Amino acid sequence: MTLPLTFLTDYGYEDEFAGACRAVLARLAPDSVVVDITHGIPAGDVRRGALALEAAAPLVGPAVHLAVVDPGVGTARRALAVRSADGGFLVGPDNGLLALALEHLGGPVAAVEISASALRAEPLAATFHGRDLFAPVAAHLACGRPLEAAGEPIEPETIEPLVLPEPRHEADGLIAHVLYADRFGNLVLDARPGDLDAGARALRIRAAGQDLEAVRGETFADGAGGLVLYDDSSGRLGLALDRGSAAERLGAGRDAELRITGPS
Amino acid sequence: MTLPLTFLTDYGYEDEFAGACRAVLARLAPDSVVVDITHGIPAGDVRRGALALEAAAPLVGPAVHLAVVDPGVGTARRALAVRSADGGFLVGPDNGLLALALEHLGGPVAAVEISASALRAEPLAATFHGRDLFAPVAAHLACGRPLEAAGEPIEPETIEPLVLPEPRHEADGLIAHVLYADRFGNLVLDARPGDLDAGARALRIRAAGQDLEAVRGETFADGAGGLVLYDDSSGRLGLALDRGSAAERLGAGRDAELRITGPS
Amino acid sequence: MTLPLTFLTDYGYEDEFAGACRAVLARLAPDSVVVDITHGIPAGDVRRGALALEAAAPLVGPAVHLAVVDPGVGTARRALAVRSADGGFLVGPDNGLLALALEHLGGPVAAVEISASALRAEPLAATFHGRDLFAPVAAHLACGRPLEAAGEPIEPETIEPLVLPEPRHEADGLIAHVLYADRFGNLVLDARPGDLDAGARALRIRAAGQDLEAVRGETFADGAGGLVLYDDSSGRLGLALDRGSAAERLGAGRDAELRITGPS
Repeated sequence: MTLPLTFLTDYGYEDEFAGACRAVLARLAPDSVVVDITHGIPAGDVRRGALALEAAAPLVGPAVHLAVVDPGVGTARRALAVRSADGGFLVGPDNGLLALALEHLGGPVAAVEISASALRAEPLAATFHGRDLFAPVAAHLACGRPLEAAGEPIEPETIEPLVLPEPRHEADGLIAHVLYADRFGNLVLDARPGDLDAGARALRIRAAGQDLEAVRGETFADGAGGLVLYDDSSGRLGLALDRGSAAERLGAGRDAELRITGPS
Repeated sequence: MTLPLTFLTDYGYEDEFAGACRAVLARLAPDSVVVDITHGIPAGDVRRGALALEAAAPLVGPAVHLAVVDPGVGTARRALAVRSADGGFLVGPDNGLLALALEHLGGPVAAVEISASALRAEPLAATFHGRDLFAPVAAHLACGRPLEAAGEPIEPETIEPLVLPEPRHEADGLIAHVLYADRFGNLVLDARPGDLDAGARALRIRAAGQDLEAVRGETFADGAGGLVLYDDSSGRLGLALDRGSAAERLGAGRDAELRITGPS
Repeated sequence: MTLPLTFLTDYGYEDEFAGACRAVLARLAPDSVVVDITHGIPAGDVRRGALALEAAAPLVGPAVHLAVVDPGVGTARRALAVRSADGGFLVGPDNGLLALALEHLGGPVAAVEISASALRAEPLAATFHGRDLFAPVAAHLACGRPLEAAGEPIEPETIEPLVLPEPRHEADGLIAHVLYADRFGNLVLDARPGDLDAGARALRIRAAGQDLEAVRGETFADGAGGLVLYDDSSGRLGLALDRGSAAERLGAGRDAELRITGPS
């Protein structure tokens, strides 16, 4: 029985890096569907990769999730294959990239360190573990090879967590942080809907030296041409500008701090 | 019997949006091939999306065409699944996006409104109908579920049309409009080859305050380093600059008006 | 028996060009897996396309490799389908694009000119041979149609080679050239590891009016925040900046000349 594969990287779309890995997957796991999640993660942005993987990986059902955002490629960081409680697997560097998705998939059941895996390609290119290490291991797992064949057992509790910023309540409002801006200029925050006063409709957002009005809404159109704080599809709060870019309006991006208050 | 799926959006390549939908398709329609048409439609550009869908969708044969360029997501705009005369289906928002492809596929045979579809995911994210509404419906149709199971019947004639600019003849030439510029800088026009005097070879193009020579040709090379008016692969007229970008040369993009005349 | 297909172009991700070809492949070769290598080759950059194809195509095993970077589309340049010694095929324009991969796949066994192929679509769009000529021929080959059915035999030795710059040794060091910069800003050179003195660890790089220190290393991290000359995964030398962009640091891109010397 074969599992589908998902595939996420920061390799971009200009080069053949993602394609080279897809070629390896097609050779070693010809009967597995490969679902590209994205290869447009900003170079080296482990946190954005972890959030994207968390949002998309659970949707496919049990699968092998191959994820490579690996600024430490070739260094002593560990390389992992993990079996999750949902019956699938995650394969990638041990730098926090897998942590959020792993939690959403029920947590780790078993894990192996695969740097010296018998399944890797030889010789191993020191700068392209995606092609020579992670993709081969993922493909073999998709074909039903047992996790134990992929590397040396490690304690699942030692898997690197991902540290996200945390929202906090202050006397005059909720302090939230921008996790990332999406292509539409929507700002995804670390705060969740439950962090806001449920009855609040009219809000003020202070960020980057600006003080702007916003409404609590469900759709972008609820902003009526202005800013709207909505429930993002990933379960977090998002800040959008109806028919525009909140990122541009606020001049705020990754890690910006927002102060969200009721009407003054 | 399963149908292939095609997939077009303005979700871009940076985020996991298209990937999340592909994950849903892979779970619900594991035996269907998914053909990505493009996810690089400019954000909210329904017209560009409709033209791209028209150009690519008919090439795959009977299929389920999933298309999401949906600036009105979450508003009262209808959400559609349509059976076309070729035996396939189109799924997407009722904002004109599906109209051109639908016409090329022989027109609508039946249509349903799917906003409250029994096939959608619950809870439905108000800002991500691609993942929770359109992709599930498309996947079920690809697996052979009947259109009637996807929503409430509507009159096919009420499907939103797409309004394109129209070329017109004036005393001193043909007035055409740029539908879009492609990545090579070629300008695709609303005019069609039949709108031009068939015998004309040397032409003048006036646009954006410029007055430039062009030739009527078949290939980019016919421009011999200059502008060439050619039959675009979509059946419209295109304006290219041999080994360059017509969009840059003219300083003209979407909606620019061109006056095309014979030699003076 | 069907073969997998690989697919590489300079069509970009904004338009439906690559998607239109994928639609043709899905219709004509519904049982073949399609492996996208990349569609982000710079417009018309045959050399970059040839290098990407060389790096990725051999990884998939015997396959039909469809590659279109074709600034001369519609001109007298030949269009090719080639059987390679590994049992696969390459399909694309005869402009050098296929040459490097073909060599890696063991060289040509037989070749046909396909411009007037019986397998092409009619009418053939003069500006979109990817859709109407190359994709149909590739799909038919993937389904097992013989090469001879695709066109007229030509002598394999007449296939256009790809001319790459060549490194050279001068009295005061190795002169190398940048083949391309990848998305991480790593510079891939025409020189190979054997061109460098094997014992050298500390190096100087002179390029674009700069004189910079570099180390010979295996991983990006070996640069310790500075420049590192490493063995690229394609078998060439690469120049990277640890946690940065060598292309930006040097202000050097495609075709830049680098002088690499030992410590002074």
